[in-house]
Amino acid sequence: MEAATIAATYPVSPFFGSPHSRPHVRGFRCFGLSIPLSRLFAASMKYRDHRRQVATRSSGERITAKPSSELRRKNTGGIGGSEDEKLRSLRALFSRPGIGIDAYIIPSQDAHQSEFIAECFMRRTYLTGFDGSAGTAVVTKDKAALWTDGRYFLQAEKQLGRDWILMRSGNIGVPTTTEWLNEVLPSGCKIGVDPFLFSYDTAEEMKAAVSKNNHELVFVYDCNLVDEIWRESRPKPPFKPIRVHDIKYAGVDVSSKLSTLRSELIEASCTATVISMLDEVAWLLNLRGSDVPHSPVFYSYLVVSYTSATLFVDANKVTEEVLVHLSKAGVQLRPYEAILSEIESLSDQGAKLMLDPSTINAAIVNLFNSTSNRHLHRSENKVKGNIGRGTHLESTTQKDAPVQVNGHNTLFKISPISISKALKNEAEIKGMRNAHLRDAAALAEFWDWLEDGVHKNMNLTEAEVAQKLLEFRRKQFGFIDTSFETISGYGANGAIIHYRSNPDSCSIVGDKNLFLLDSGGQYVDGTTDITRTVHFGDPTARQKECFTRVLQGHITLDQAIFPERTPGFVLDVLARSSLWKIGLDYRHGTGHGVGAALNVHEGPQSISFRYGNMIALQMGMIVSNEPGYYEDHSFGIRIENLLHVKEERVPNNFGGIRYLGFERLTFVPIQSKLVDCSLLSFAETKWYNEYHSEVWEKVSPLVEGAAQEWLWKNTRPLPLPQQ
Amino acid sequence: MEAATIAATYPVSPFFGSPHSRPHVRGFRCFGLSIPLSRLFAASMKYRDHRRQVATRSSGERITAKPSSELRRKNTGGIGGSEDEKLRSLRALFSRPGIGIDAYIIPSQDAHQSEFIAECFMRRTYLTGFDGSAGTAVVTKDKAALWTDGRYFLQAEKQLGRDWILMRSGNIGVPTTTEWLNEVLPSGCKIGVDPFLFSYDTAEEMKAAVSKNNHELVFVYDCNLVDEIWRESRPKPPFKPIRVHDIKYAGVDVSSKLSTLRSELIEASCTATVISMLDEVAWLLNLRGSDVPHSPVFYSYLVVSYTSATLFVDANKVTEEVLVHLSKAGVQLRPYEAILSEIESLSDQGAKLMLDPSTINAAIVNLFNSTSNRHLHRSENKVKGNIGRGTHLESTTQKDAPVQVNGHNTLFKISPISISKALKNEAEIKGMRNAHLRDAAALAEFWDWLEDGVHKNMNLTEAEVAQKLLEFRRKQFGFIDTSFETISGYGANGAIIHYRSNPDSCSIVGDKNLFLLDSGGQYVDGTTDITRTVHFGDPTARQKECFTRVLQGHITLDQAIFPERTPGFVLDVLARSSLWKIGLDYRHGTGHGVGAALNVHEGPQSISFRYGNMIALQMGMIVSNEPGYYEDHSFGIRIENLLHVKEERVPNNFGGIRYLGFERLTFVPIQSKLVDCSLLSFAETKWYNEYHSEVWEKVSPLVEGAAQEWLWKNTRPLPLPQQ
Repeated sequence: MEAATIAATYPVSPFFGSPHSRPHVRGFRCFGLSIPLSRLFAASMKYRDHRRQVATRSSGERITAKPSSELRRKNTGGIGGSEDEKLRSLRALFSRPGIGIDAYIIPSQDAHQSEFIAECFMRRTYLTGFDGSAGTAVVTKDKAALWTDGRYFLQAEKQLGRDWILMRSGNIGVPTTTEWLNEVLPSGCKIGVDPFLFSYDTAEEMKAAVSKNNHELVFVYDCNLVDEIWRESRPKPPFKPIRVHDIKYAGVDVSSKLSTLRSELIEASCTATVISMLDEVAWLLNLRGSDVPHSPVFYSYLVVSYTSATLFVDANKVTEEVLVHLSKAGVQLRPYEAILSEIESLSDQGAKLMLDPSTINAAIVNLFNSTSNRHLHRSENKVKGNIGRGTHLESTTQKDAPVQVNGHNTLFKISPISISKALKNEAEIKGMRNAHLRDAAALAEFWDWLEDGVHKNMNLTEAEVAQKLLEFRRKQFGFIDTSFETISGYGANGAIIHYRSNPDSCSIVGDKNLFLLDSGGQYVDGTTDITRTVHFGDPTARQKECFTRVLQGHITLDQAIFPERTPGFVLDVLARSSLWKIGLDYRHGTGHGVGAALNVHEGPQSISFRYGNMIALQMGMIVSNEPGYYEDHSFGIRIENLLHVKEERVPNNFGGIRYLGFERLTFVPIQSKLVDCSLLSFAETKWYNEYHSEVWEKVSPLVEGAAQEWLWKNTRPLPLPQQ
Repeated sequence: MEAATIAATYPVSPFFGSPHSRPHVRGFRCFGLSIPLSRLFAASMKYRDHRRQVATRSSGERITAKPSSELRRKNTGGIGGSEDEKLRSLRALFSRPGIGIDAYIIPSQDAHQSEFIAECFMRRTYLTGFDGSAGTAVVTKDKAALWTDGRYFLQAEKQLGRDWILMRSGNIGVPTTTEWLNEVLPSGCKIGVDPFLFSYDTAEEMKAAVSKNNHELVFVYDCNLVDEIWRESRPKPPFKPIRVHDIKYAGVDVSSKLSTLRSELIEASCTATVISMLDEVAWLLNLRGSDVPHSPVFYSYLVVSYTSATLFVDANKVTEEVLVHLSKAGVQLRPYEAILSEIESLSDQGAKLMLDPSTINAAIVNLFNSTSNRHLHRSENKVKGNIGRGTHLESTTQKDAPVQVNGHNTLFKISPISISKALKNEAEIKGMRNAHLRDAAALAEFWDWLEDGVHKNMNLTEAEVAQKLLEFRRKQFGFIDTSFETISGYGANGAIIHYRSNPDSCSIVGDKNLFLLDSGGQYVDGTTDITRTVHFGDPTARQKECFTRVLQGHITLDQAIFPERTPGFVLDVLARSSLWKIGLDYRHGTGHGVGAALNVHEGPQSISFRYGNMIALQMGMIVSNEPGYYEDHSFGIRIENLLHVKEERVPNNFGGIRYLGFERLTFVPIQSKLVDCSLLSFAETKWYNEYHSEVWEKVSPLVEGAAQEWLWKNTRPLPLPQQ
């Protein structure tokens, strides 16, 4: 999948590196914009229900939603002066007793910083009508604005009602959300957020930003205000059973992983850690779920201390097998919504928590710190009292409930699981290799089918093609799901890096232009992510030159050998320099990490022009290699393989260190028709031929008939240059 | 010259980029060690004399130096328990009234952060006996330690007396100077420094570091304690006339440069700036000097305000011509030592200064801020009084003379002259081109002579060879000086990156091993810096492979095209990846900036693995391209050309920006004998042949006879690969 969606981390201004405190940031942001790509989702419905009860008890009143016909009126083009009904309902909540805010921010996060989330948590989409994957809405008492990036300007213009201001992020002069709030609100306002939907880091940044105009960032704990107005029409939350990830694929058992984590806790003088990233929980416990599309994870928190491990998850998702599996490793179960009482209890016990500030949500950190402080205060004053759940509405700056930022009870540190998970063990690598071969077989069948269909003028749409690819993958052993939404872009659509084809209106895949297909599968033993670009007719010389230069970048990175301790960004230029030679480039990173039978995008490593991510590429990591070139309104090119970072046997070891290189995992032909052989060097041609010989050797036994014939035809060598 | 001596800036730990406050640091540091490479020099003798008078007046006593025979005893191997006499004299000063310190740090800086400085200011060498180019001495009441890096461990072991502890910087477990002081001194000590010898940035870092053990960093203003014990035996300071740098070489007149600088002051809402970097003063005023070897600069400060410009320099250096030149641009003259009274006067006038904290010395900043504060204090209290020079001994933490760090009267900012100076104008580029051609002619004559001499077994030493090269250069129009001390290393000596040949003991240049020669010239119109590595006999296959891979890196960087705004470090990998392929590397940067008829090392750009320097390569910059490979105790290889960053005409301009590339300035053959043609690609061979064809075309008209024949033979093409 295109690297941009994870690539690096967060925007680095051209003259400064990453702040020291954040050598690795886990959010998925795009193209230097501050708008996250991940969709708008939130934490478990169960937990929200619990909160709603609290809200009901405390406020004593409920907001009645308007009929959906009324709600729709504004967005269906109804003319008239009336305020958007959703906005009116939302604003009415601002002054509800116990809330008292002047603005509310609706971000694109869930409580776990997940990339893929379920429809029932798409609060921003519900509120604004804009359903692009990236966007942040901000509502004040008299204004409503939505921030999104260049990919979505046109779509947002169409979908937003006229009460909404579209903020074109990245355009010159467009303020950030907090800059705008500082502008439009009089000094000293209260800006509400749902603290579950912001990482601690982000909340701290926002707090500092709005304080410039003396505003307060207010954590509205008890309810999400959008949920309050959404109510009955809100879709149900996902609710699928968890399964055990077989040890033959996981490689290391849960007890060993817990033991390693505990050693890290001891080393850091911490007593416990709270893990909120869903892929980290799944990896650590060798469990997989189906709560969200594309990522085999399940909503949960995990708390690990020296002596215990507790999984906070909906008990209905836990099968007998999972129960046995967990109890063998000494992992206890508690309801998902019990995480907050656990945090309070940890605080009461005087725990010192290790937390990753870029992933843990502000609600948890704030609760832990304020409870700790109250506890401290209570102890100091020898006053007994019931501390309970704590205040349900917290001003982040109010004097009587100070937030202990980076206090002595919290060690903020990049999650040790993030790096452990990135360094695949032999079993995981084996699973990845095998899954890639089966995936390659499915793709050989698919490409044969598609070529045939296009030549027979079957008028297949981009969406139909993607659907058919899914069918071919489904036939393979262990297939579970696509690893992300397939990008199937013909012609100009291929130039839209994050293109998603709409089944009702998308293009026919023809033979007059390039077709870019970026897709991946979740298998029981591995995760794939591959992009190929093909032409079913006669490519232009321009297309061939661009394709060949992308291929040269792909080859150069593939062939790189580098000393250990080299950060990924150092290699980024290798994938670009062939394009730079003719003044071309691409506006996304070159490589992202990939999970083993887990998230298709994972950190902490990346290969990108975002120079802040100093994480070195290390043995066992998986990265994508996906340079591209996109000619607006014309065509798009991307060539993507996954690579496994391995030690290279080199004749020298200068500096007494290892030298690393890549093992290719992806084995699918790269269309020779698009290669301008006159541009390739001898070594590049040799690479191309050797790769295709390897593709034939590895994949041909897995296909037969027409697909095998297709594979044969498409793995023939290029002529070596006669210079 | 080898890039390491400037390369980047300051150590970047492997996981973190540069702090935001220092995107560009001007000090010349090496290999990630914190020891500066620049030699130990200090500000003008005149100024020091002035300070000594002050010291005499205030303390009422003088220290009498011991006879030199006594001083020498310790270092000439005399056995016995007596304390090193210099150390004893120095320590005696610690408790002198008005001083009262527990330790004293003797660094490798002068008041201007110069790279090359005169012998009379080599205080660390005088005190320690160790004369390597890099080293910091720290003396406490009972300990004396010297920090240096791996290049000098053996030399320092030999030269240091036994009262000295050698601190091997970069070795595991070796503390930094401040860590050591925190260890060996009881809490709450006073650590003295000469504030002229530390940049403001460095002093602030040290202050923070020693405060961890509650120590105070004390600025000893009135005298340098080493000078106090050195006295009569101290060499005289340099004292040469200043000359005007012709407008035909400078390109832009002084009035225009001052006007640009004033615009920057206005834009930054500052009223004045103090320029202390000697090359910045020389560049801004189109003047050149001869106060130090290799760099055509003169000791001075320059203060520029909206309405005035004042050069603080010894009037004896100012010729009639210079006087006229300066008065035309409205530049006034004041004595060098008047800078401090000027700072006080600026403070009294309520000036807001723009200062570069990485280059301006702590003495100036501290005086300005403390005077401002006192002024403020006085105004507030309506108390009249004589403020005068201020205290001569300043505790950096004492309450009654607070140092206003980054106060409202000071804007800390990278010097705008640094970047202006780096962006060469057409006249400067033309001068650089011309100087390089004459330099190439001298080198052709030299290489012909040397080849002949070696083949005739003339037993020429490395030092004699360097001397002869100087003679050939001297014959060229406008030659002034070498631009740095020539590195002339035969065989194993070539593997010592910073090798300096000792005329009394250096090697004969023979035909059994590689000979590395890194040298440069200062000409009236430009500055050169070139390295070539040759073999006068039969190179081994190993040597050829290593040489060819260095050459491949050189070619790849030379041929790079990249979008504007690309920081130099992004390109560093291009020069290394051919070596990495076989597990080799080099421990220095790949490129440094070069002045136009100015310092051979200048910032702010660099091409290096030090990823903190985010300064982009920009049109008009000059950088070196000098990958290398060094096999310890065996041989060294480096191939260095200078490059001019220019716009490339590319067929596309993706992103609507310019794409940049390099124009080669250096035209001297690269020995074909050392090239393993089988390793070169078609494109690399073509580059080699085209470069040599260009060398012949450009340089052959400038040489004749044997030298021309040599040039002909050494510019013949390599056979193109038959693959």
